[in-house]
Amino acid sequence: MGIVNGTTNYMLSKMSNEHLDYDEVLKEAQAKGYAESDPTADVGGLDAARKVVILASIAFNTRISLKDVLVEGIENIEACDIKYAQSLGYAVKLLGIAKNDPENGITVCVKPTMLPLTHPLAGVNGVYNAVFVNGDAIGEAMFLGMGAGRLPTASSVVGDIIEIARDIQSGSTGRISCTCFKEKKLCPPEKMSAPAYIRLQVLDQPGALAAIAAAFGAQNVSLRNVIQQNAAKGQKAEIVVITHSVSESNLQMALQILRVLPVVEKVSCVIRVEDSSLA
Amino acid sequence: MGIVNGTTNYMLSKMSNEHLDYDEVLKEAQAKGYAESDPTADVGGLDAARKVVILASIAFNTRISLKDVLVEGIENIEACDIKYAQSLGYAVKLLGIAKNDPENGITVCVKPTMLPLTHPLAGVNGVYNAVFVNGDAIGEAMFLGMGAGRLPTASSVVGDIIEIARDIQSGSTGRISCTCFKEKKLCPPEKMSAPAYIRLQVLDQPGALAAIAAAFGAQNVSLRNVIQQNAAKGQKAEIVVITHSVSESNLQMALQILRVLPVVEKVSCVIRVEDSSLA
Repeated sequence: MGIVNGTTNYMLSKMSNEHLDYDEVLKEAQAKGYAESDPTADVGGLDAARKVVILASIAFNTRISLKDVLVEGIENIEACDIKYAQSLGYAVKLLGIAKNDPENGITVCVKPTMLPLTHPLAGVNGVYNAVFVNGDAIGEAMFLGMGAGRLPTASSVVGDIIEIARDIQSGSTGRISCTCFKEKKLCPPEKMSAPAYIRLQVLDQPGALAAIAAAFGAQNVSLRNVIQQNAAKGQKAEIVVITHSVSESNLQMALQILRVLPVVEKVSCVIRVEDSSLA
Repeated sequence: MGIVNGTTNYMLSKMSNEHLDYDEVLKEAQAKGYAESDPTADVGGLDAARKVVILASIAFNTRISLKDVLVEGIENIEACDIKYAQSLGYAVKLLGIAKNDPENGITVCVKPTMLPLTHPLAGVNGVYNAVFVNGDAIGEAMFLGMGAGRLPTASSVVGDIIEIARDIQSGSTGRISCTCFKEKKLCPPEKMSAPAYIRLQVLDQPGALAAIAAAFGAQNVSLRNVIQQNAAKGQKAEIVVITHSVSESNLQMALQILRVLPVVEKVSCVIRVEDSSLA
């Protein structure tokens, strides 16, 4: 998995370190030229999806297409989500994730993700990008560098040109053939499982938490953390939960039920959690 | 620069996270098989020096030999040094460092180093190794992975074998010739400059700090932080200083004078600081 989009990482880092809101940070990123005037491809996750498609194809030796990727952007992340995450020991990052589960197949997605603050990717800030791999023999490894800027970009491109020139000079073009030489099973996104962070805006009335907990329970979604924030003057009451590992389909069903509960005003934010200690 | 020795990184991480002392941690590392019964090559920095010689030769396209490397190990680091470092915002790591200064030439050394906790290498713990590079065009980049263990090691070796097999198969052995095709100037270690952390055991008497500060001043060593710990019952009085950037030769002269000062019982520990914000 990796942080493969500099714009969104700059924005999320800025929101984390300076406790600014999404709109503020986006405007600043645009003013600085880090985000385009139409920022959809970056903040919506499409740019990251294009990159993770290439990485997944190389990693698993099978052809992955953009249509295979479940894509979610950072548009719904608010400053308070990052604050809740920090208080629970997590950083919020937009990750491209590609997993090869021998049983269910390959899943590829882009989504905002909570990572333990001790995870190597959690400290990758600003315009830095990084790819984190977990292999059967190599174990965990990470490759970090700048994700944008004319000199780092030129350096990469010229590095590729030199590599190609060496191949031509030594008469060995086509030395490594296409890496997509297998056809592997894809796992439908509904089967993906991970813990989830859910922030709900609720009516400040007795029984709200009980009703919500019951809705989760009815969908077999068990809860790990619950934070109840009573309404301060002029603010909405909030309930934040972190679930145990839950499949995408069960989570979506639970969210549907929550949305029509009388005590729930709004499902404000849903963020997946990548934390091996919660397995 | 890099963390290129798994044993010492395991030991320093253990000392940092569990506030254990050097001897305790070494014994545990030996019991677990991470450190050999004669741990000199690891804890003395020689193993790291052998690796940084290879890295420096590749990085700067010139031949570096083991005799060019100034080597210092972690034998003098105590739990309290790591605690002081943490309170000042630093982690202590045994680093192999190779710098190419266009004016003075190349310096290569292995030494315990304080790094800002926000530095990517500061979070590389346990048996993980990492190499951090700073290039003219690429900027900063880091490569992290496990530094020991049979599967990661086998993975690297087999990777090299596959690379060689591809070269043979495509008739392009010798595709990349020796990388040491230049002869570059080396910088004598005495000229190396960096801030330094110094822990002194002193007599608990009036004027001790003044005498020590005067000794530093006489060698043109200016101080950035001073921590004076008065003697608790049964403990020695301690003074810890962090200097501004100081050359190795000036530092050594200052240390010589300090060692013969009547108020100084012992120069307990000296650790260089790599912190670009202190330049």
